[in-house]
Amino acid sequence: MLKGRSLIDPMDFSTEELDEIFDLAHLIKNNPEEYSQICKGRILATLFYEPSTRTRFSFEAAMLRLGGNVIGFSEPNSSSVSKGESISDTIRVVSCYADVVAMRHPKEGAPKIAAMYSDIPVINAGDGGHQHPTQTLTDLFTIKLVRKSLSNITIGVCGDLKFGRTVHSLIKAMSRYENVKFVMISPKELKVPEYIINEVLEKNNIQYEEAEKLEDVMEKLDILYMTRVQKERFFNEEDYIRLKDSYILDAEKMKLAKKDMFVLHPLPRVNEIAYEVDDDPRAYYFKQAKNGMYVRMALMAKQLGVR
Amino acid sequence: MLKGRSLIDPMDFSTEELDEIFDLAHLIKNNPEEYSQICKGRILATLFYEPSTRTRFSFEAAMLRLGGNVIGFSEPNSSSVSKGESISDTIRVVSCYADVVAMRHPKEGAPKIAAMYSDIPVINAGDGGHQHPTQTLTDLFTIKLVRKSLSNITIGVCGDLKFGRTVHSLIKAMSRYENVKFVMISPKELKVPEYIINEVLEKNNIQYEEAEKLEDVMEKLDILYMTRVQKERFFNEEDYIRLKDSYILDAEKMKLAKKDMFVLHPLPRVNEIAYEVDDDPRAYYFKQAKNGMYVRMALMAKQLGVR
Amino acid sequence: MLKGRSLIDPMDFSTEELDEIFDLAHLIKNNPEEYSQICKGRILATLFYEPSTRTRFSFEAAMLRLGGNVIGFSEPNSSSVSKGESISDTIRVVSCYADVVAMRHPKEGAPKIAAMYSDIPVINAGDGGHQHPTQTLTDLFTIKLVRKSLSNITIGVCGDLKFGRTVHSLIKAMSRYENVKFVMISPKELKVPEYIINEVLEKNNIQYEEAEKLEDVMEKLDILYMTRVQKERFFNEEDYIRLKDSYILDAEKMKLAKKDMFVLHPLPRVNEIAYEVDDDPRAYYFKQAKNGMYVRMALMAKQLGVR
Repeated sequence: MLKGRSLIDPMDFSTEELDEIFDLAHLIKNNPEEYSQICKGRILATLFYEPSTRTRFSFEAAMLRLGGNVIGFSEPNSSSVSKGESISDTIRVVSCYADVVAMRHPKEGAPKIAAMYSDIPVINAGDGGHQHPTQTLTDLFTIKLVRKSLSNITIGVCGDLKFGRTVHSLIKAMSRYENVKFVMISPKELKVPEYIINEVLEKNNIQYEEAEKLEDVMEKLDILYMTRVQKERFFNEEDYIRLKDSYILDAEKMKLAKKDMFVLHPLPRVNEIAYEVDDDPRAYYFKQAKNGMYVRMALMAKQLGVR
Repeated sequence: MLKGRSLIDPMDFSTEELDEIFDLAHLIKNNPEEYSQICKGRILATLFYEPSTRTRFSFEAAMLRLGGNVIGFSEPNSSSVSKGESISDTIRVVSCYADVVAMRHPKEGAPKIAAMYSDIPVINAGDGGHQHPTQTLTDLFTIKLVRKSLSNITIGVCGDLKFGRTVHSLIKAMSRYENVKFVMISPKELKVPEYIINEVLEKNNIQYEEAEKLEDVMEKLDILYMTRVQKERFFNEEDYIRLKDSYILDAEKMKLAKKDMFVLHPLPRVNEIAYEVDDDPRAYYFKQAKNGMYVRMALMAKQLGVR
Repeated sequence: MLKGRSLIDPMDFSTEELDEIFDLAHLIKNNPEEYSQICKGRILATLFYEPSTRTRFSFEAAMLRLGGNVIGFSEPNSSSVSKGESISDTIRVVSCYADVVAMRHPKEGAPKIAAMYSDIPVINAGDGGHQHPTQTLTDLFTIKLVRKSLSNITIGVCGDLKFGRTVHSLIKAMSRYENVKFVMISPKELKVPEYIINEVLEKNNIQYEEAEKLEDVMEKLDILYMTRVQKERFFNEEDYIRLKDSYILDAEKMKLAKKDMFVLHPLPRVNEIAYEVDDDPRAYYFKQAKNGMYVRMALMAKQLGVR
């Protein structure tokens, strides 16, 4: 039962519970009209203690497309709520007005504290560099959509794998499925942290390999999950000049990939995917953004117990 | 008839008119579903020239839960409306788009001027340190709910009684009911102003007493209305150290109170009510916040003439 | 067919297409109830990269009064959307969530770029000093309403005609109708630019005259379109002192005008129309603001193909 449950960590829900959400998201995607009034009379509160327009829009559109409504704030200045008031008091007041909360907060753990004191379900919409579970659900739902399954798959993750929150969550979440193999493409300085290797991959007997250049591994991949590499994260200028192009996906590199390999990206992109790739039918990142809305619709419908 | 009327001062409405609002608020609270569409097609404009997230949320949730919608701004920067334009012009333009306005403004009297030029009802949602009439309505409705009546009651008001806007409004508003007695607990420096004593209490033959320590009077009270005492308002450090604990409500002091004495607070609290009190069934401040939404629903339904 | 079309420049639509919009706006104005649900389930995204509360309110109220909903941001700070992301990416993500976009942007041409990449119609809600087509549509609709026709009319435009965006757009748009005559009243320094004279008025054989004082030409006008003259735009103090009153419309000057001459103004006004004029039945600027909402309702209904 997901009714009344909060979602703070991507691993809060079992794979069966995720399947419940993905199945509903699928139904909604195929027949949005049928679900367009199921949250009538319900209110989502978007408490964004730091701005994140894309995520906020996705949550708000999700609730509106279910027939519900939205109250909220979109940046710290406008939230007198926060002034001198504890998170626990704020959430108890917001519980009086809303039926479900999406909270974005610069401090790790803030949504978790909110969930402890809330009478209504709290969704972590990103807490610092920590967790962003609805992004992970979006990624899983998208992979399942294009591959029909979350098992038997080789996933390339490319970019800054050291600090990239979404990639860590994706690896953890995918490690619960069968016969998943990871190909991790990054500069040496930005490799996946040891604890992910030891406590997630090794511990669960997940196959993985590491690579420094995208072009060396393209042909193996079923999914390529791109993220950004920031110049200032390289240790020296030489390495940056030598390697930077290896983390930019372009039409040339797409020629090396399978015909049914899909490219995902959490967005926003800066220059890590060349615009020329957008027209390739395997470029799936904007569709992924749309899937994020359907996943959030399904999640909130389940939390509110209307489906 | 409340249809089309503005609410600028808590005393704008007669006690009979307030009863009309409270009766409707009561009905809505008990059967929200029945009222969930009565404002369909109506628009509330929330013009918040200074941020007050809690109040804004309460108004917006109120209108949404009546089936209406909301436009608005939540802080001065985003209101190009205000740039070089008079309040009277702004309100006339907003009147073109909305059906009722809730205005928060740092300047005393701004909502009153707005109401003079508006084609639609204006609600003062707080004008500087001046008035905040929907807070007073919330307080009265809450007292009436827990006591069944606004007469025959001993109300303790505790904290900074000199500058506390909500307390002054509460005393004025309660002075219209029968057999009300006030116990006013504050440091000497922060006693209720002379004009409240002379022009409200004495003039209306209201019984009152003043006290310096909460623990001395707890047992007499039917309602305890807590507010904050800011350290910087004390005249000297010694007094502050000697007295500060007397204005913090904790489980110990609650033992001195009647079994059916309810604790109210306009929120946000800082530390004037210890968290341990939250679990006491007499702690009523979060329910009071929820009542604020029902009162605003009833108020706007009356002003719009839909009930 | 206006379905799916963007509106970037006031001249994007033919006069026949404008008539379609104005006819629908007229129907909505006369019977709003009948149209109050035609956009149910649709979402407008208001992307305001610079604040413009009045315009934003008009768009949002328009969509809400058609039964639709709104997501959006109202100022640059809150738009993480913009950080490092191209307009083309932003609009493609917003296209996932919304059905129509109103974009305000300080950079000329930004809405045009957005429209090129958008899957959904984009409305330019003002791009720098460049275009603001829904203001022009509002002006034309209002003139048509009060005059029954957009032909056979003498329009006075008064104020800063050199930099005034709305006036340039109005002249261009009106030049497509028959027997329109312009009287352009401004200080010498702020006359209509040469290219408007040559490429719009002369080229289309439009009659026009220029005047320095409002009082000299009042009696000829069917419509007086007022805009502001900023003191700092005068070349010298002497001229300013000599002329300033000639650009302030007051009751005295209104006496010189025809009985059925209507005064329009895009708002906000500062002091270019004296408050005493507001009570004159010919003062039409607040009604014009309301017409702006009806025009936007009709425009979006057409773009969404629901009417």
